[in-house]
Amino acid sequence: MQDKLTLMIPGPTPVPETVLKALGRHPIGHRSAEFQSIVERTTKQLQWLHQTTNDVLTITGSGTAAMEAGIINTLSRGDKVICGDNGKFGERWVKVAKAYGLEVQVLKAKWGQPLNTNDFRQLLETDTNKEIKAVILTHSETSTGVINDLETISKHVLNHGHAITIADCVTSIGACNIPMNDWGIDVIASGSQKGYMMPPGLSFIAMSKRAWKFNEISNLPKFYLDLKPYKKTSDKNSNPYTPAVNLYFALEAALTMMQTEGLQSIFARHARHREAVHAGMKAIGLQIFSEEGYGSPAITAISPQNIDAEQLRKEVKEKFDILLAGGQDHLKGKVFRIGHLGFVNDRDVLTAVAAIEATLGDLGINNVKTGAGVAATAEILQKR
Amino acid sequence: MQDKLTLMIPGPTPVPETVLKALGRHPIGHRSAEFQSIVERTTKQLQWLHQTTNDVLTITGSGTAAMEAGIINTLSRGDKVICGDNGKFGERWVKVAKAYGLEVQVLKAKWGQPLNTNDFRQLLETDTNKEIKAVILTHSETSTGVINDLETISKHVLNHGHAITIADCVTSIGACNIPMNDWGIDVIASGSQKGYMMPPGLSFIAMSKRAWKFNEISNLPKFYLDLKPYKKTSDKNSNPYTPAVNLYFALEAALTMMQTEGLQSIFARHARHREAVHAGMKAIGLQIFSEEGYGSPAITAISPQNIDAEQLRKEVKEKFDILLAGGQDHLKGKVFRIGHLGFVNDRDVLTAVAAIEATLGDLGINNVKTGAGVAATAEILQKR
Repeated sequence: MQDKLTLMIPGPTPVPETVLKALGRHPIGHRSAEFQSIVERTTKQLQWLHQTTNDVLTITGSGTAAMEAGIINTLSRGDKVICGDNGKFGERWVKVAKAYGLEVQVLKAKWGQPLNTNDFRQLLETDTNKEIKAVILTHSETSTGVINDLETISKHVLNHGHAITIADCVTSIGACNIPMNDWGIDVIASGSQKGYMMPPGLSFIAMSKRAWKFNEISNLPKFYLDLKPYKKTSDKNSNPYTPAVNLYFALEAALTMMQTEGLQSIFARHARHREAVHAGMKAIGLQIFSEEGYGSPAITAISPQNIDAEQLRKEVKEKFDILLAGGQDHLKGKVFRIGHLGFVNDRDVLTAVAAIEATLGDLGINNVKTGAGVAATAEILQKR
Repeated sequence: MQDKLTLMIPGPTPVPETVLKALGRHPIGHRSAEFQSIVERTTKQLQWLHQTTNDVLTITGSGTAAMEAGIINTLSRGDKVICGDNGKFGERWVKVAKAYGLEVQVLKAKWGQPLNTNDFRQLLETDTNKEIKAVILTHSETSTGVINDLETISKHVLNHGHAITIADCVTSIGACNIPMNDWGIDVIASGSQKGYMMPPGLSFIAMSKRAWKFNEISNLPKFYLDLKPYKKTSDKNSNPYTPAVNLYFALEAALTMMQTEGLQSIFARHARHREAVHAGMKAIGLQIFSEEGYGSPAITAISPQNIDAEQLRKEVKEKFDILLAGGQDHLKGKVFRIGHLGFVNDRDVLTAVAAIEATLGDLGINNVKTGAGVAATAEILQKR
């Protein structure tokens, strides 16, 4: 039905009316005092979200722009780095690092498995010459619904004493606890169409003091993504180039809503929704793709048996106007993914499970009585 | 007065309600068939605007991102290039080229003067070893209100036979005639908050077949701004990374309005507004900063005597809620600029002139009778 779509993908995620209304305002001058005050407020709000006193800079661009900025602003040609790779976005880190001539050691895990923190510990402990400059990894691997143990890995990096941690928190920030200061993470990249409850187009890069120290000697060529001018203008509540002014309006509205809800409530909601989706899918007889205990609070990948995941996804879209995400690359047709990230309430989660089991029932390939998924989901959701 | 601002700056420019409404729609999935059809339509519309059959790619980012993409996707380290520089955006080209290790020969003109086309001809004609790889210039120099003679310079480049032309058409596209195919321009960069009548956040890069040939051997490091993945996905009406979906909604709405108005009418409107602003300012006794005959159809810089341009700008904003642009860098306080780019009608132009002369009168530094500017402006506007 026209205009009735519900997004249950890992981005773009649903956007509140309050945020859309802010987005649709007439633009103002990006060098005006009014806009400067928006930059000032959103910068503080972003620091709140990152639980940090570090700089958090806003770049007009996709999340990939922030990921690349994290690498090219801290490292130099030939630098040795470790990249964690257990999915499509881990792979992307490797590609970015190689595009700039870094010496990349890849620590892989099978898609669906978390990165092995001991592999990182071992490499870092045996690096007695302190050649490793950075450990680069994805926190919530969107392609597989796996959450990696960023806290433990960043501890190993801190013990190493010389390397920095660069983390893609694109689908984890605003979904689960990432205390940047407490965990000692140096670089965090994220994008607006995720936990931020707003449309795509802005990306964010948080830089620790150590990351800025690395920046001083970084020699990789850059211009638009050179963070020095962003830092310099951010200190005056401004931007080096014309930013996406209307997306800033939306950013302020969204972060204000998030502050009203509170960080702990936001994290609890995402954890409850992960649990509710997992329970519902298992009750329907479907298998969770991510290893037990490593499900992302932002997204769940499910590997259905006896049916092409793309067909199921198509039917759910056509029958119920719910957009689920498909599998990426070799997982296409093998998994579908339910996004429960950002502006998602209990109704959305219950509805998605209900629609999936109703569709499976209609296709005649459901082994359990329709309703079992909803019952299991509802039980979890009651535990507020 | 709150919510009553009129933007007369060179970007962000005013945005039609139709475009803002499109912007404020709920986002949809960027891998959906519905979004693909938007990409397909806007790509064709962009080709219409560029008067070309070449690829026109959309990047989520500021105009500077597209400018950089133009350089790093066609050139290689050590390549010899000529950069035209007669203002802040000419300077930016030089900075980008140098950041990537190109050998840059700068052809300067004084701020307010156009680039000397003969300088370009001479350098290109004497380059018998064909060492020059590219001529890089700004078409409409936003900082000074000067339009450079892109047509003639690109002819000289074509006569050279080996170099390509890379043009910043950020404030000229959608304001005056730029037939990319007819003029044989190889790369055109632009940004959404200008002639496109929409908010900032998207940038556009048009690439000729020759530019793609250069791309094959270009060795500058890049990832987010690497145009190969944009081309590959654009051919399937998609994007390599999550694009600013809502800005795409706005883009389609704005380009549809532009197609309804028609290219020739749009160009005629901008030319008339330039003439009307010039006539009005001269009648008030103010001096146009750009050399006679080289005024940009997008923006006029004015150098007032006996008053600080920033003070005048502030008064006009406070009294009449019209935002004019200030002078950049060493022109701060010395010039103010009237943007007449994009969604600007005769009323806006008449109002701006009226507000400026009323303000000058009020400040007691107007040498002519208040009303002379409006009379001169109205006379030009009548010539529809």
